[in-house]
Amino acid sequence: MRGAAAVTTTDFLTRFLAGDRLALARAISAIEDEADGYRDFLREIYDRAGNAYLVGVTGPPGAGKSTLVSHVAERYAAAGQDVGIVAVDPTSPFTGGALLGDRIRMKELAGNERIFIRSMATRGSLGGLAKATGEVALTMDAFGFDAVFIETVGVGQSELDVANSADTTVVVVVPESGDAVQAMKAGLMEIADVLVVNKADREGADLMARELRVTLDLKAGNGWRPPVVMAVATEGRGVDDITAAVAAHRSYLRESGELVARRRARVRRQLAELLAYEFKCVCAATPGYENLLEFLTAEVQEGRLTPYEASARLFKEVSREM
Amino acid sequence: MRGAAAVTTTDFLTRFLAGDRLALARAISAIEDEADGYRDFLREIYDRAGNAYLVGVTGPPGAGKSTLVSHVAERYAAAGQDVGIVAVDPTSPFTGGALLGDRIRMKELAGNERIFIRSMATRGSLGGLAKATGEVALTMDAFGFDAVFIETVGVGQSELDVANSADTTVVVVVPESGDAVQAMKAGLMEIADVLVVNKADREGADLMARELRVTLDLKAGNGWRPPVVMAVATEGRGVDDITAAVAAHRSYLRESGELVARRRARVRRQLAELLAYEFKCVCAATPGYENLLEFLTAEVQEGRLTPYEASARLFKEVSREM
Repeated sequence: MRGAAAVTTTDFLTRFLAGDRLALARAISAIEDEADGYRDFLREIYDRAGNAYLVGVTGPPGAGKSTLVSHVAERYAAAGQDVGIVAVDPTSPFTGGALLGDRIRMKELAGNERIFIRSMATRGSLGGLAKATGEVALTMDAFGFDAVFIETVGVGQSELDVANSADTTVVVVVPESGDAVQAMKAGLMEIADVLVVNKADREGADLMARELRVTLDLKAGNGWRPPVVMAVATEGRGVDDITAAVAAHRSYLRESGELVARRRARVRRQLAELLAYEFKCVCAATPGYENLLEFLTAEVQEGRLTPYEASARLFKEVSREM
Repeated sequence: MRGAAAVTTTDFLTRFLAGDRLALARAISAIEDEADGYRDFLREIYDRAGNAYLVGVTGPPGAGKSTLVSHVAERYAAAGQDVGIVAVDPTSPFTGGALLGDRIRMKELAGNERIFIRSMATRGSLGGLAKATGEVALTMDAFGFDAVFIETVGVGQSELDVANSADTTVVVVVPESGDAVQAMKAGLMEIADVLVVNKADREGADLMARELRVTLDLKAGNGWRPPVVMAVATEGRGVDDITAAVAAHRSYLRESGELVARRRARVRRQLAELLAYEFKCVCAATPGYENLLEFLTAEVQEGRLTPYEASARLFKEVSREM
């Protein structure tokens, strides 16, 4: 792991904080790989973060999220803002690579100096991606981007992770049979601060937008009422409306004090995650942990212990190390 | 919580083990709600589990998974087998209810005494659903079902959870533009033991099946080669082929010794999960934990501590209780 120790040298940090994108790319790789020293690196840069506005973008596969994010990012860039994009691919641990689509997109955006894009795939176990995504967003924030877009396929748990990581969450849906119902099933409606009906030139788009508005009316409280924006990503239609809707939500969050509340909830979750991580480290560092786990697994499988007895014994062993 | 303590009484256990479905339904609710005593209940029934064959079914939203599972379950029932179905809805913590579609299906299957169906929604945090799903599958297994189907929307992390919980994993896809690519993106290909192209009367179905077979050929090793089965769920077409493919995979797992290996890996993961759960319980039971977490969150948000310093302090406090 060549870049492992490198991310903690003074020289590396100087380059990172001076805006060297190669240093940024290496830092992100270190986070993805959980390379030695990456946590020290995060500690070092932590104070620099907190200035970027974080926008989450989620929706079903094939909804056109990537294209929309590219267009919106270009609007920000045209307005003089530096933008980071994290494209999260909640894929299997087997493929573990960047998406083909992202590779193509990266080429398209490569000409724009104000935009930095990086895709990330699931490697580790449950929850690993959420942790890494938050850390990469933090890194981009500390690097000095004005806005960071976190984009992911939104079914399963990943859309909640995005909503938890972002200040404003944009949900993209498309007018296909049953898609509105699916979006609601997947819980996308509840996390949306801005709803986008993409491929709005297709049949059923207006009906879908109406349905979404009715649903939102039923749920509306006193606070923010998520707007439904029509878009055709491939033609760049609706991009200005999305950009404006995100800006409006940002103003609302600031003025209502909700931005502080959202960010506090995020810190709280982060502390709970770090705590669980510390425990995992203690487990891994417990002498004989792997052998004991192996032994207890066999005991359970052969019916001599219940998993509850086995885990209690494992816990006792780990506790001694604390 | 009326049913809370009830699940640990001798009377309740007797009824559960005698095959009382109301007792089963109440036990599942206790698991979903993490009601007092549910872990004691699981301990009590653990020895009875291990006989059911576990089939995971996953795929994109709208692929027709529910309909296919219903049909296959009816085949099993017709052959004299008792079948449990857990329909997992990885939705938001806000909606927290059963799916409309499942309610309709439950009515359809209600007439079949050999089939028991239950839907579950995400309530808690990351990983909570996977834990509860495994526990419900275990409960159905201990109750005496010959087969348990675990069905979930497969994008995000949930399809990995299903694959980890099941003996045989069936992946359902549909011939829609880009769906094959999406399936691969979502990592569904790698976890499939049986691949189903549903809505096979639609254009592009044959092409999709060919693409899938080519991909599988490229990946094929010496072991099991996942068959690609064509189906039209709404007409019941392909159901016999799916049933046969699952049976063939089951034979393969048994004869190759892989069934034992898969189940061992499952126990191992379960022990790691239970260990993390024990730690969470210790945290929750640490006097002043909530107040300290609240205090440290504010310290981090106001820039006086980094999250790393804060979590180290939290961990120190919790360690004292261990």
